[in-house]
Amino acid sequence: MSGRPLDVLEASLQEPVTVNLKDGSAYYGTLAGYDQHMNVVLEPPAADEEEDVLGEIEVTPVEDTTIIRGDNVVTIKA
Amino acid sequence: MSGRPLDVLEASLQEPVTVNLKDGSAYYGTLAGYDQHMNVVLEPPAADEEEDVLGEIEVTPVEDTTIIRGDNVVTIKA
Amino acid sequence: MSGRPLDVLEASLQEPVTVNLKDGSAYYGTLAGYDQHMNVVLEPPAADEEEDVLGEIEVTPVEDTTIIRGDNVVTIKA
Amino acid sequence: MSGRPLDVLEASLQEPVTVNLKDGSAYYGTLAGYDQHMNVVLEPPAADEEEDVLGEIEVTPVEDTTIIRGDNVVTIKA
Amino acid sequence: MSGRPLDVLEASLQEPVTVNLKDGSAYYGTLAGYDQHMNVVLEPPAADEEEDVLGEIEVTPVEDTTIIRGDNVVTIKA
Amino acid sequence: MSGRPLDVLEASLQEPVTVNLKDGSAYYGTLAGYDQHMNVVLEPPAADEEEDVLGEIEVTPVEDTTIIRGDNVVTIKA
Amino acid sequence: MSGRPLDVLEASLQEPVTVNLKDGSAYYGTLAGYDQHMNVVLEPPAADEEEDVLGEIEVTPVEDTTIIRGDNVVTIKA
Repeated sequence: MSGRPLDVLEASLQEPVTVNLKDGSAYYGTLAGYDQHMNVVLEPPAADEEEDVLGEIEVTPVEDTTIIRGDNVVTIKA
Repeated sequence: MSGRPLDVLEASLQEPVTVNLKDGSAYYGTLAGYDQHMNVVLEPPAADEEEDVLGEIEVTPVEDTTIIRGDNVVTIKA
Repeated sequence: MSGRPLDVLEASLQEPVTVNLKDGSAYYGTLAGYDQHMNVVLEPPAADEEEDVLGEIEVTPVEDTTIIRGDNVVTIKA
Repeated sequence: MSGRPLDVLEASLQEPVTVNLKDGSAYYGTLAGYDQHMNVVLEPPAADEEEDVLGEIEVTPVEDTTIIRGDNVVTIKA
Repeated sequence: MSGRPLDVLEASLQEPVTVNLKDGSAYYGTLAGYDQHMNVVLEPPAADEEEDVLGEIEVTPVEDTTIIRGDNVVTIKA
Repeated sequence: MSGRPLDVLEASLQEPVTVNLKDGSAYYGTLAGYDQHMNVVLEPPAADEEEDVLGEIEVTPVEDTTIIRGDNVVTIKA
Repeated sequence: MSGRPLDVLEASLQEPVTVNLKDGSAYYGTLAGYDQHMNVVLEPPAADEEEDVLGEIEVTPVEDTTIIRGDNVVTIKA
């Protein structure tokens, strides 16, 4: 669970993650891909995972395959 | 439908995508091209695709071939 | 009319284009040159092309040879 | 305790650090990883370390494995 | 008068140019040099050239040899 | 005392420096390290050095080993 | 006195320069060094040079050896 930032992303593939952006928004989904710029691809979370998130404020579960350009990212929580 | 961000763009060529920009605007169109900086080219969406989008708020279907410079992009939804 | 972003610029040489910038301004002119940073050179549009644009709001036809530095660009419409 | 910035990060692995970001927020946790862009990975601090921090204002102990993208960082205090 | 952006700068050496910056200011002078980052050097314009510009609003003829760092530039008008 | 910027940093190692950041804050400490991005490491200043600074406004002597990411820096005064 | 931007800096070594920054501040001093990023080193100006500047508004003669990080620079006037 520890290691370099990209190692953490690699270990989180197919797992739910929350991505917080510089504009204050947050995206929740299953990590489907990433690259060295921290561009990430999120897929809609599984139904049971989505349940947990609906209790949180301001986090948007993605509804489509969503590419997030890395330079917008503040944090990625695995 | 999963994979690296540029793989997702490659798989989305000739498909409708929505591109959200840092200034809060959003563009809808058929993905005609892209490069490694996430610069993208959108073409006007097909008429039947446009129908769906007109029901959404704040998304502008492109009317001309439109190059979007990648550093403006927040998300691309495939 | 489709392809990579720089291919679209190449195909648009000597054609009228509209360049929208991050500061909200827009420039209209004949695309005279570009480079890989999306720096572009616009020349004053031909008189008949200018006619069309004068009906649009907030688009400035360039009056001189104008270099636009690429990092200001949001979209280029061909 | 002195040396180049990345040497300080290397020496701080598995130690508690506070990361201050450009948006004014601050994160506290155990440094689990970093890379040359100053992207860092924080893990929740050990319970006894967390005690100390709860007395400080505006510092958020991370609750999950958290990747922070380096371009948001102002300071990292070891 | 057409060509790549740096070709236009090369062709404009020793000619009067107006440089518009991101902070809304504008500088007028004789183009004395440039580099690939679009950093430019302006010299005070010749007296007769200055006459023309004094009729424009908000353009400052440079009074000294002035280096402008390229990342501030929006447009350079030749 | 003169020379290239990184030469000045090299000559200032183990000396007190003041680092002014883009957010208006300033840090005072002993320069313990730096790299080519102007990332710097400050250590708490020696007690007698700190005395001098306490008479200045808005300068914070660092209390811990502090890495400052270079892209926040406006000036470093040696 | 003309030439590429870095040639102008080279020719200005040991001469008084005024550096205007993006935050609206300005620094006056003797140019002691520079590098390819336009990072510059200013030394306090000689007493007779300082006299001239004290008649100008908002220009701060540097009091110490001052490194200015290049990405803050708008203009350097030689």
